[in-house]
Amino acid sequence: MTDATRIVLASRPTDAPVDANFRSEHFTIGAPRDDEVLLRVRYLSLDPYMRGRMSDAKSYAPGIPIGGTLVGGTVGEVLESRADGFSRGDWVLSYSGWQTHAIAKAETLRRLDPQRAPVSTALGVLGMPGFTAWSGLAEIGRPKAGETLVVAAATGPVGSAVGQIAKLQGARVIGIAGGEKKCTLLKEMFGFDVALDHRDPALKQKLAEACPHGVDVYFENVGGAVWDAVFPLFNEFARVPVCGLVADYNKSVYHGGAAPEGPDRLPFMMREVLAKSLTVRGFIQREFIAREGEFLHEMAGWIEDGKIRYLEDFVDGLENAPSALTGLLEGRNVGKVIVRV
Amino acid sequence: MTDATRIVLASRPTDAPVDANFRSEHFTIGAPRDDEVLLRVRYLSLDPYMRGRMSDAKSYAPGIPIGGTLVGGTVGEVLESRADGFSRGDWVLSYSGWQTHAIAKAETLRRLDPQRAPVSTALGVLGMPGFTAWSGLAEIGRPKAGETLVVAAATGPVGSAVGQIAKLQGARVIGIAGGEKKCTLLKEMFGFDVALDHRDPALKQKLAEACPHGVDVYFENVGGAVWDAVFPLFNEFARVPVCGLVADYNKSVYHGGAAPEGPDRLPFMMREVLAKSLTVRGFIQREFIAREGEFLHEMAGWIEDGKIRYLEDFVDGLENAPSALTGLLEGRNVGKVIVRV
Repeated sequence: MTDATRIVLASRPTDAPVDANFRSEHFTIGAPRDDEVLLRVRYLSLDPYMRGRMSDAKSYAPGIPIGGTLVGGTVGEVLESRADGFSRGDWVLSYSGWQTHAIAKAETLRRLDPQRAPVSTALGVLGMPGFTAWSGLAEIGRPKAGETLVVAAATGPVGSAVGQIAKLQGARVIGIAGGEKKCTLLKEMFGFDVALDHRDPALKQKLAEACPHGVDVYFENVGGAVWDAVFPLFNEFARVPVCGLVADYNKSVYHGGAAPEGPDRLPFMMREVLAKSLTVRGFIQREFIAREGEFLHEMAGWIEDGKIRYLEDFVDGLENAPSALTGLLEGRNVGKVIVRV
Repeated sequence: MTDATRIVLASRPTDAPVDANFRSEHFTIGAPRDDEVLLRVRYLSLDPYMRGRMSDAKSYAPGIPIGGTLVGGTVGEVLESRADGFSRGDWVLSYSGWQTHAIAKAETLRRLDPQRAPVSTALGVLGMPGFTAWSGLAEIGRPKAGETLVVAAATGPVGSAVGQIAKLQGARVIGIAGGEKKCTLLKEMFGFDVALDHRDPALKQKLAEACPHGVDVYFENVGGAVWDAVFPLFNEFARVPVCGLVADYNKSVYHGGAAPEGPDRLPFMMREVLAKSLTVRGFIQREFIAREGEFLHEMAGWIEDGKIRYLEDFVDGLENAPSALTGLLEGRNVGKVIVRV
C-alpha cells in the first residue's frame, strides 16, 4: 500500500471556483492488477474545460460527482507494472487527474520518449491543446495563404499553436491576449503579425484597423468581448471553429442558470451568419482522433525544426492546483499551465 | 416603343413594408439590341429575401436604391428577339423584377419547356427555392436515415421541399407552420411525420415531445420563437443550415439598428454549439450553383414520379405585389407566392 494525496470536488462553484470548492484528501493505493500499472503522477495539466466538469449542467462530458477526484491529463512514471510492455521508470501520458498516485489500465496509456521532447509537452504542444489547434485548423478553420486569422488567449497552449500553424500556412495572424507582457511574447516569441490587448478599451477599433481585409478565420476559445469585436469583421465564407468560451465559463447560463441581461446579441449574430455565409462549428479534438498520428508527426517535426515554439507555466505542488485553475480562468497564466505534482 | 409598368422603391421600410414604401410607374421600353430579348413578364416570384434588399444595411447583396425597380425572379414570354436561339413565344426564366416588360441579355436567361412542367415551377420547386432546399440538405444538413429533421415555414416552397426530400432520404420530419390549415397540409399533402403550429403557446413542449431522440438537422429559415424551441433539443453533431430568418427581417438589427432587448440569448447558443459540436452554417444557394444541373434532373424526376409535391399561391396583378409581399413576411400565404403580372 502506498500513501497518496488527491484533490476532490467539495462543492460546485456558482461563479469562479473558490478554495471551498476543493478538498485535499489522503488515501492509500494498492498494487496494480493484471494489465495495470501503478503511476507516480509527476505533471498535471490544467485546462479551461475543467471548469465545466465542476458543474452538473449537461455538456459534452458528465460533471464530476461531489467527492470525486478532479479530472485532468497527467504525465507520470511507472512505479510498478503488471502490464506487458511497461516497466518501472517508463514515462507515460495518462488521464489520472488531481492526485499524486494512480492505477491505470495499460490500454489507456501513451508511452513517452523523454529523449525526443520534454515529457511535459505531452500535456501541451504535443498533447490535447496542440491537437485542438492543429485539428481545428485542419478540419474547420482551413486558413489559406493571404487570409486573415484572429485568435484570442493567444499566448495559451491552443492559441499560440493556432497562430504559429496558421503562419506556416501563409495566413496573416492577429493575436489577442491580456496585457503588455503577453502581447510582447506574441510578437517576439511566436511571430504573430499583430498583438492586441483585450483589456484595451479601443480593442474593437484597433482590431478593425488591424484587419483591413476583414477576417477569414476566427479561432474561438474565449467568447466575451473579443467575440463582439471580431464578429462585424467577417468576410463572406469565414469559418469560426469554436473550441472554448473561457470568458463565459463562470456565467450561470453555463451551469443551467438563466440567460444574462440584454441586449440580445443573437439576432445580429444570426444576421451575419446568413448575410456572409459563415460557418460556426463547435468541436472537441477527440472527434478527429483518427488524425492524431498525423498531428504528432507533423508537430514534432515543426518543433525539432524550430518552426513552432511553446511556453510552459509551471506551478509547484498539487496543493496549489486550485488557485492555479482559478488564475487560468482569469488569464493570469502565461503559457501552458502544468502542476509539478 | 412599348408601354410598361413597374414598381419602384419609394422609401425604405423601418419595420414591415407598407404601401408608402412602393410606387407604381408607367414607362416605355425600347427594342432589344444584339444578344438581347424583349420580354413580357408573366409570373413574378415573391420571396422573403426581398425585405433585405429594401434595406441599405450591408448584406450578401446590395440594397435597391430609392427609385430603383424592385428585384425578383420572373418567368416571361419573348416578344422580340435579337439573340440567337430565342424566338418570339419562347418561355424563359429571368431576373427582371417587378415590371410588366423587360429587356434581358440572352446569357442571363434559362429556357423553359412548358411541356415538361408548368413554367411557374421555375420560380418555386424547380427554381431558387427548390434548389435552396436541395443544396442546403446536400451540402450542409445531410440527413441520414433514422435522424430527425425540423423545418419551419414548412408549407412554404423551401420548407415543403426540405421536408419531402429529407423523407425520401429516410429521416423523420417535423414541420412547423402557422395555423391548423397549414398543419393539415403538412401531414396530408406533404407527408410530414408531425406538424406543429408555431402559434401554439405550448410549442416548446410539444416539439420536445415530438423529438424523443433529439434533433439532428434544423433547417433554419425563420428564426424567432422556433429557434428557441429547437435549440435545446440538438443532438451531438447536429447541423443547422441557415438560409433565412424571416421572423427577424423586420427587426431593426437587420437594417443597421440596435440589438433588441434582452435577455442575451447568445451565450446559451454558443454553449450549445460548443457542448454538442454543432454546425451552424449560413448559405445562399448560388454558392452551390455548380450542382444546379444535378438538382434539376433529380427534382424533375421526383415530381414526375409523384414523390415531391408543391403548392403555388397565385396573386393576380402587379399592383397587388406589395401587399402580397407583406402578407408573405407575416406568413399569410400558403405555398409559393407567385404574382400573375
